[in-house]
Amino acid sequence: MEAGLFDAKVMNAFLEGTMNVLKTMCFTDAVAGKVGVKNATLKGDISGTISLTGMGQNGVFILSFSKQAAVLIVSRMVSEDKIHLDDEVRDAVGELTNMIAGNSRRNLEALGKKYEAGIPTVVVGAGHEIAMKVSAKSPVLMIPFMADGKHPFSVEFTFEKIK
Amino acid sequence: MEAGLFDAKVMNAFLEGTMNVLKTMCFTDAVAGKVGVKNATLKGDISGTISLTGMGQNGVFILSFSKQAAVLIVSRMVSEDKIHLDDEVRDAVGELTNMIAGNSRRNLEALGKKYEAGIPTVVVGAGHEIAMKVSAKSPVLMIPFMADGKHPFSVEFTFEKIK
Repeated sequence: MEAGLFDAKVMNAFLEGTMNVLKTMCFTDAVAGKVGVKNATLKGDISGTISLTGMGQNGVFILSFSKQAAVLIVSRMVSEDKIHLDDEVRDAVGELTNMIAGNSRRNLEALGKKYEAGIPTVVVGAGHEIAMKVSAKSPVLMIPFMADGKHPFSVEFTFEKIK
Repeated sequence: MEAGLFDAKVMNAFLEGTMNVLKTMCFTDAVAGKVGVKNATLKGDISGTISLTGMGQNGVFILSFSKQAAVLIVSRMVSEDKIHLDDEVRDAVGELTNMIAGNSRRNLEALGKKYEAGIPTVVVGAGHEIAMKVSAKSPVLMIPFMADGKHPFSVEFTFEKIK
């Protein structure tokens, strides 16, 4: 975690928003790994993205799951054993993206930072990568998580000033 | 094309924005197919997405290419023979997404509809699908295109009222 590049309170808003929703909605403990600037492209199998706008900034929030993590988490969320990344899992990942962004936005609002969220989109595709073109001044921050200690997923976000 | 579900002028704003950028920046004629409500999930190999906000609405714009279409179009854009969906192609698709959204936004502004764009994201992954969860009242509209008459790509967009 590189000091100075970002506000730890903002990072915590997303970290706690993620853990809270996973715990409440999916009965899953998400343990965060080393937070930092995204420098390698991370591959996911199913990802939700949502735009955040406010404070004179544009932002993007991404929630990206391995297939194993998505199937585990959504199975608990819908109380049904999911095996494939079907329409129900896709819809659930869209909802989780919405809810985690919402929970994180409330945490940010408590810091005096108010953002509005856009329409969630869900990407399904084995080993896809999602890149955001932002300037060096506004890096993409990533929080790697493990669900149940073994199934990886990640949260990424970035903000840049509106020109 | 189902009448009444959407404004043909809005659809034309995106259609002309796409054709104009492809012609000007990539020297490529894009021919549009049958425009309509997206009902099947379309698979792409590389896609750019960008959020649109304004008029009391949230929106999303998606530009989705087959690998063949992306390689052809970006090769012309950067004046270099591209074969793979490498970092340069990824960045170029992000730029095209930005430019087509920008051109379409200017067309929309001429209709009195002003939207702001967010940060473009680019998804890379063979045969990925992108879904948007919107209500039945705000369907996802799709314009299928052929580049050089044989390489498919598509433009999709949706808007919904901010609650």
